[in-house]
Amino acid sequence: MGTLMVGSLGPAVVVQAARQYGTPLYLYDERTIVERCRNVLAMPNAFGLHAGYAMKANANRAIVQLVAREGIGIDASSLNEVRRARMAGIASRRIVLTTQEVPEGADRSELETLMSEGLLYNACSLRQLHLVAEFAARTRARLSMRVNPGVGSGETVTRNTGDNYSSFGIHMTQLAEATSQARKRGLTIEQVHVHIGSGGDPAVWQSNVDRMLAITEQYFPSARTLNLGGGFKEARMPEEIAADVQALGHYAERRFRQFAERTGRRLVMAVEPGTYVMANSGYLVTSVIDKKWSGPEGFEFLVVNGGMECNTRPALYGSRHPFYVVSANGSVLSSDFDPAVKQQPGRVVAGRCCESGDSQTLDAEGHVVPRPMADPSVGDYVVIGGVGAYCASMSVFNYNSHRQAPEVLLREDGSLQLIRRRQTLEQITANEFALDE
Amino acid sequence: MGTLMVGSLGPAVVVQAARQYGTPLYLYDERTIVERCRNVLAMPNAFGLHAGYAMKANANRAIVQLVAREGIGIDASSLNEVRRARMAGIASRRIVLTTQEVPEGADRSELETLMSEGLLYNACSLRQLHLVAEFAARTRARLSMRVNPGVGSGETVTRNTGDNYSSFGIHMTQLAEATSQARKRGLTIEQVHVHIGSGGDPAVWQSNVDRMLAITEQYFPSARTLNLGGGFKEARMPEEIAADVQALGHYAERRFRQFAERTGRRLVMAVEPGTYVMANSGYLVTSVIDKKWSGPEGFEFLVVNGGMECNTRPALYGSRHPFYVVSANGSVLSSDFDPAVKQQPGRVVAGRCCESGDSQTLDAEGHVVPRPMADPSVGDYVVIGGVGAYCASMSVFNYNSHRQAPEVLLREDGSLQLIRRRQTLEQITANEFALDE
Repeated sequence: MGTLMVGSLGPAVVVQAARQYGTPLYLYDERTIVERCRNVLAMPNAFGLHAGYAMKANANRAIVQLVAREGIGIDASSLNEVRRARMAGIASRRIVLTTQEVPEGADRSELETLMSEGLLYNACSLRQLHLVAEFAARTRARLSMRVNPGVGSGETVTRNTGDNYSSFGIHMTQLAEATSQARKRGLTIEQVHVHIGSGGDPAVWQSNVDRMLAITEQYFPSARTLNLGGGFKEARMPEEIAADVQALGHYAERRFRQFAERTGRRLVMAVEPGTYVMANSGYLVTSVIDKKWSGPEGFEFLVVNGGMECNTRPALYGSRHPFYVVSANGSVLSSDFDPAVKQQPGRVVAGRCCESGDSQTLDAEGHVVPRPMADPSVGDYVVIGGVGAYCASMSVFNYNSHRQAPEVLLREDGSLQLIRRRQTLEQITANEFALDE
Repeated sequence: MGTLMVGSLGPAVVVQAARQYGTPLYLYDERTIVERCRNVLAMPNAFGLHAGYAMKANANRAIVQLVAREGIGIDASSLNEVRRARMAGIASRRIVLTTQEVPEGADRSELETLMSEGLLYNACSLRQLHLVAEFAARTRARLSMRVNPGVGSGETVTRNTGDNYSSFGIHMTQLAEATSQARKRGLTIEQVHVHIGSGGDPAVWQSNVDRMLAITEQYFPSARTLNLGGGFKEARMPEEIAADVQALGHYAERRFRQFAERTGRRLVMAVEPGTYVMANSGYLVTSVIDKKWSGPEGFEFLVVNGGMECNTRPALYGSRHPFYVVSANGSVLSSDFDPAVKQQPGRVVAGRCCESGDSQTLDAEGHVVPRPMADPSVGDYVVIGGVGAYCASMSVFNYNSHRQAPEVLLREDGSLQLIRRRQTLEQITANEFALDE
């Protein structure tokens, strides 16, 4: 048992990080991040590939720098994300901004400076297009346009990015008007952009490529890049199947070539992975702080010191994450990736928030369901995998006044680097004022 | 239309707060908070009533001070909440700590000091009881014990606080062991505690009173207080029905008297309201920043500058909140509490996060559903009601690198007090480190 891995990590590293920085903590694996970046950049393509890291997945400065070092640019979802990317040293020309809001006032001036430096602004609505048009025309700034194709990834019925339930992008039915306005105002739309969510069906991704090539041909005669967004399905649990980015690339390569043969246009392909790069590169290391029992018709509970405030995804989406139970001295007692785990009795992993939904073992409907795992002692560790994306960056981290957990990066040379220190209570309360009498 | 209220607020106050502090912002109404506190304290009771504010609902220093000024104590869910209450000037003897974790190391010493000062520690597991027993026996510190009665509020099937799916408290089947240990170690359990969630059925609350009186009689011969927790159902939407706390009090009063007649024990009743005090005392003021359309089979979208990062409850629970559409100059264009709103076409309110679920108009299953409301212009306001509890304190506020929104209190004299200023970007990134080369 002691030879089992904790995902991509040796268990000794988990114990070392926990002792050095305390729990709960996020632990990221540089080797996996690098491997994933290289997989993206190795995607087959016809006439060039641009990759932009969706930094909303994990906006930590060191992570942004690491991804950029590998040759991937930045997909920012707000002006603040652009600022954070700039603080990390990323050049404006390597950043695409896709946001729901056009900055106003002083923020607008800042955006225009960034666009002058080469930031690619992705107009996501008629209003956005209108608001940047004058500046873009005058300065010949590059522009992108996000299209709402009216078709999603099929992952869920009514919350799909890209379908009729989505507000993202300029809807198909308004593209004629949008592109006509762009022409009249002297704009050049250099990139066509779409994102249809992270569904896993390759056929959906393929039909998205075909649809977007047709849209590019019909509406965007001067576009040089087709940005297909993110949406590479990741496999967190053993039984899940990840997207095969090489196969998706092969398909796109063939279609882009056929497009070139027909139209003479050699389009660059762009992609925006976030989950794909980070999800399985991150682990949440928690300590077992209590064990409870809820009666003969109830469950065995492991109470850990990092739950919904560190990983809100189970409560938000009913998402499932793999568990590794590690003894205080570094033996892997059970792993969801070890078939023998199925012999273990089921346990419920509960967090430390006073909230009935604070469990890491919820099913897709949000119900508490026990998961087979070893029986650790208080002081042992429960390590939760698949938390590199949308956990540190998207959690209710101050709920119950808990402090935001630190982030630690396991470097390729085996050393640990603290890339975000644990929040202090003083930071939580720094902006508060007492009641005036 | 212009004479309609925004919940408990005049619309001019909404506009004033928005202009003075910018949007998005949380706006709380002191008058409503005070009224709710007084309703709680006016609950009928047989032999005394203690009320503790569940500060995890909204832990802002000024709110804690305001509630305490009205004569309500503090129900803290973590040592950090205790610290925040102490920073707000609340005496230790007015605080009950009910947490999933027993503080270790230096935190334990701090807890013991707090217990010496009169903080009531609520033992929530056999391990917790064991860990505080030596200190409590030696210093004769007061103790409470949380019971898991194995029965929840019935609100949901499998995520109820208090039922077999819950890890909160010492389960019924272990009470004999727990109380026997307490006796052997010389502990006095002064309070019996239970919390079964915020279901709205008065019959469930009543049967909880009966069950807990029986448990108190059987297992806790020296307890002087029965703490029934929170769980007063609040009505956020017009069609919802709030708990009648006076009627619940009348029932408890009668049962506590009957208990006294039978046993000679005059128990104090304690309650721990959070949602009841704060939910309808708070509003999220957002600005309309864009309007979009998702085609003939799609929706009209209002994009507002405060969505899931300010109010995560719709995404987490499918909870519904009332909307008020207010023009930039302060006319109420529509209100969910005005029957005429039903004549308006349906619209979807989307936030500014790049996330398909970032909508404030989700149904209980998390599906995007349009809500009838007026058609505002960009620059008008959408005010979201019922957000005083579990919003500022429980949200993914830095998602997409957005800044935590400010909190403003409308005082009873009509003035506005900033009680939490808007977070800065520097605060978001203060704990990060650059990648070591």
